[in-house]
Amino acid sequence: MNTSSPITIDVLQARVQAIFCAAGISTVQAAALTRVIVAAERDACKSHGIYRIEGILRTVKAGKVNPVANPVLLPGADQAIVRVDAKAGFANAAFELGLPAVVARAHQFGLAALVINDCCHFSALWPDVEALTDQGLAAMILCPSYATVTPSGGDKALLGTNPFAFGWPRRGAEPFVFDFATSVAARGEIELLRRAGKPVPEGWAIDADGLPTTDPETALGGAMLPFGGHKGSAISIMIELLAGVMIGDMTSPEVLDFMGSTAFAPIHGVLILAFDPSRFAKDRPGNPLDRAELLFDAILGTGARLPSQRRYLARQKSQVAGIQLTEAEVQSLDRMLAQGPDA
Amino acid sequence: MNTSSPITIDVLQARVQAIFCAAGISTVQAAALTRVIVAAERDACKSHGIYRIEGILRTVKAGKVNPVANPVLLPGADQAIVRVDAKAGFANAAFELGLPAVVARAHQFGLAALVINDCCHFSALWPDVEALTDQGLAAMILCPSYATVTPSGGDKALLGTNPFAFGWPRRGAEPFVFDFATSVAARGEIELLRRAGKPVPEGWAIDADGLPTTDPETALGGAMLPFGGHKGSAISIMIELLAGVMIGDMTSPEVLDFMGSTAFAPIHGVLILAFDPSRFAKDRPGNPLDRAELLFDAILGTGARLPSQRRYLARQKSQVAGIQLTEAEVQSLDRMLAQGPDA
Repeated sequence: MNTSSPITIDVLQARVQAIFCAAGISTVQAAALTRVIVAAERDACKSHGIYRIEGILRTVKAGKVNPVANPVLLPGADQAIVRVDAKAGFANAAFELGLPAVVARAHQFGLAALVINDCCHFSALWPDVEALTDQGLAAMILCPSYATVTPSGGDKALLGTNPFAFGWPRRGAEPFVFDFATSVAARGEIELLRRAGKPVPEGWAIDADGLPTTDPETALGGAMLPFGGHKGSAISIMIELLAGVMIGDMTSPEVLDFMGSTAFAPIHGVLILAFDPSRFAKDRPGNPLDRAELLFDAILGTGARLPSQRRYLARQKSQVAGIQLTEAEVQSLDRMLAQGPDA
Repeated sequence: MNTSSPITIDVLQARVQAIFCAAGISTVQAAALTRVIVAAERDACKSHGIYRIEGILRTVKAGKVNPVANPVLLPGADQAIVRVDAKAGFANAAFELGLPAVVARAHQFGLAALVINDCCHFSALWPDVEALTDQGLAAMILCPSYATVTPSGGDKALLGTNPFAFGWPRRGAEPFVFDFATSVAARGEIELLRRAGKPVPEGWAIDADGLPTTDPETALGGAMLPFGGHKGSAISIMIELLAGVMIGDMTSPEVLDFMGSTAFAPIHGVLILAFDPSRFAKDRPGNPLDRAELLFDAILGTGARLPSQRRYLARQKSQVAGIQLTEAEVQSLDRMLAQGPDA
């Protein structure tokens, strides 16, 4: 594949943001969207990079998201729950609005939750996790998605790919972060296989009759399987309950009914939990950040790797040498910029 | 196997508590221990029932737990963290002491944590989960254990079997509860296979050289594998961080070093998170408990089952017909009672 000259992170940021603004997305929404997309490209996390722009624009043009929404931070300062109503805008601007409040509450109470309601969500969760670890907090983030995964033992799609992300802050190193779909694979991975004309590995999916399939088109029309059998399935159900039902937002089957198609970025809620290790470890022996390093060293000592290391290596490279796009990707960015709001 | 006449739950409660008291365990500690062991027998959850008494007595006799500890609820009423110092006693009495406080804080702040430090822990987590769902709260409970599980991609034991439990309250039905080891199997299951002279299924364990094994003895001397590959491994590491490092208590490798052997019930900490759905769903459409029932109905509609149903069926049966022990089990209870503190 032909590659263009590398471009800096700032240049890509400006180009992507220009595409969003040209499509009629407000500056607040566009800037937040752009930050997570460029972060994904910077980290060579292609499934959440510029590949996602097309779906975002499609969602805007279909009127399924409010591209000029002003998210609102709701009152409730007496409690450990911070709530942002995204007003049917993108989750990213809502998260940025709620971040300082949930950080302050986590320091105040020891732990706190940020609930984002009624948001359009397409992004990886690790950028939000890192925003919390940057403040010295541990964080857990959960959300539903589209009903595309069968519960373990079931024969049809009901659960979302329901991502589960976690982060732990490290001094002098990138944080310990994982962010994975509770399906065996992310739906984006099957979509990329479909585009590449490649089969889906066995054990990833069932067809519409509940039988195993390796055809990506059939898999997308059937159901994916949860990771780890009944245990992963249970975690996915927990995510529907906590980050759908409990926060008064849609579950994955409700999201699919509401949107009518998985062709758009879905509307749902997000639950973010933030923990202040210094409060939890208070008056106990040892510093939690130092003690975590001993655990990480021991993990590496078994021959295992820490999650996100591939991302962090790509990040270092991008920060020095810029981001390398293919010529097709550059042309795609040009085309999307030219289309504007009326395409 | 010969069975004795069924005995009532109350009779078993009295017999088990008498064994603990005869072994020099204080009434507060013994009563709490007995409740979880009898609950496990009532629910036909044999791996956490009277089978565990022997290990508890062994741990007491070895001086590895303080059988007369009085757990202490520490001050800190301004925050959402309730902390109980178990004073090297069993986790169960500490949990019972902290329960009313964490319930009150969850109602007050929306969510709250109960941290139990320095406790001896052998029990399933679902009795504690149910104590929280009984109060209308959702709950998540995590704890480390002994370093007996390799991280994914590693070649030696480092992580614990680190249980992950979750509960959601239901009106007019037993709660939605899952409670599983983050290893492929619980260590107790391998121990039961060893006693039965049966092989361990493939994919459960590696030997001391990091190679696959199906021999239970070799598996217990090597390492178990995490469930769900790198995803389950990541969750297990999260549990070490949150329920070990963050709460200022031991990680699983530290527990193994401290205890010197897995023959005893381990000393470590426990992290309990409690969520008040009525606070999280405030001013949002729909009642979260009603909406959860729609999700459960839909799960059953796919042909999948809800977790814990086997336990609840056994519970109903026990409540009506009593608990059926084998003659060997009854003799074992008699023998343990007769041994007293000097055996």
